[in-house]
Amino acid sequence: MRRADNAHAFSPEERAAVYRAIAERRDMRHFVGGEVAPQLLARLLEAAHQAPSVGLMQPWRFIRISRAPLREAIHDLVEAERVRTADALGERSDAFMRLKVEGIRECAELLVVALMDGREAHVFGRRTLPEMDMASLACAIQNLWLAARAEGLGMGWVSLFEPQALAELLGMPPGSKPLAVLCLGPVAAFYEAPMLVQQGWAEVRPLSELLFQDRWGAF
Amino acid sequence: MRRADNAHAFSPEERAAVYRAIAERRDMRHFVGGEVAPQLLARLLEAAHQAPSVGLMQPWRFIRISRAPLREAIHDLVEAERVRTADALGERSDAFMRLKVEGIRECAELLVVALMDGREAHVFGRRTLPEMDMASLACAIQNLWLAARAEGLGMGWVSLFEPQALAELLGMPPGSKPLAVLCLGPVAAFYEAPMLVQQGWAEVRPLSELLFQDRWGAF
Repeated sequence: MRRADNAHAFSPEERAAVYRAIAERRDMRHFVGGEVAPQLLARLLEAAHQAPSVGLMQPWRFIRISRAPLREAIHDLVEAERVRTADALGERSDAFMRLKVEGIRECAELLVVALMDGREAHVFGRRTLPEMDMASLACAIQNLWLAARAEGLGMGWVSLFEPQALAELLGMPPGSKPLAVLCLGPVAAFYEAPMLVQQGWAEVRPLSELLFQDRWGAF
Repeated sequence: MRRADNAHAFSPEERAAVYRAIAERRDMRHFVGGEVAPQLLARLLEAAHQAPSVGLMQPWRFIRISRAPLREAIHDLVEAERVRTADALGERSDAFMRLKVEGIRECAELLVVALMDGREAHVFGRRTLPEMDMASLACAIQNLWLAARAEGLGMGWVSLFEPQALAELLGMPPGSKPLAVLCLGPVAAFYEAPMLVQQGWAEVRPLSELLFQDRWGAF
């Protein structure tokens, strides 16, 4: 790795660790049960909580699911949406149904992440782009994902559910919105490439096709 | 740092580096000019490009701004929205106008990040939550942010602009949408706490208030 550009740079070893976490993080759907020690879970959630947020609104709320019947009910919600998504996919329906898209029953920890209620009061950075609250929530989840990978834990972000149904299940107030069901915990192995690539569902595009200069489509 | 929980965990030093990047990343608005070497910029963008994306849609598009008049035009768009946001903030208007909210003219590199056009074709994980494309884009930006911090570079995410006006300025196609103006480059120092905290604009809430058990509001 090349020499640091400036005095604020991390050491080469530290930089390599950050890039390693970014490169080896995977959206996991295969888990092996087990558990996440409370102190470790707390560390991961603190990492999420250190994310940037628009106007410092910290719009994220975490709900840890500890009751087995509740986990089962969330699984059922996701399964119902999996079938509806398959229907919507038309000719790719059968291929989609063969994919494993979640590990809700097998993961050690299940978390729901939601946007808080009352977000309309936050105008800073959101007057023209109200979806910046979602961006902040996603930055928090990415922090959690990278920290989990460094700790050797897998994580998967499941977005196959009807948000209103999940909100009702968890007693969420009007104006709040669940956006992630996170499966977290020990895994047998991390996928060497994104699972959707391994399964032939999708291909990764090179960055060079997605990077323009001064104008859309200009290279 | 405690012993690794499993064989997939990074070394203690590597884990510490990942947590350090997460803890010391800041939303920067003060830059000192300079430049970002092309190879370094490429590394940072590759880190962004390794983000997770819903159904592997990779919805992010990056536009590097190299022309000075274009940078000036983007600054003008942001300045216009800054004034409109101040108006919308009512009694906090004056305090808002005293905040430095962007470093567009001073940063070494200016990037616009946008969602691609044609996103309605991507149903996987988005049938009930179409905003998952924004989530993927934000994960990419968070990767870039953390990698930049490890490299000793500051970054700021500016969301004060009219997206339609910026889209027109950059020749973006219908259905695409700019969501971030990123200021990137060398800084004199990183803020020790979020700048909005240092300036007395906002306070950080403890995680304990935002973490529930099985049901919204239950601890």
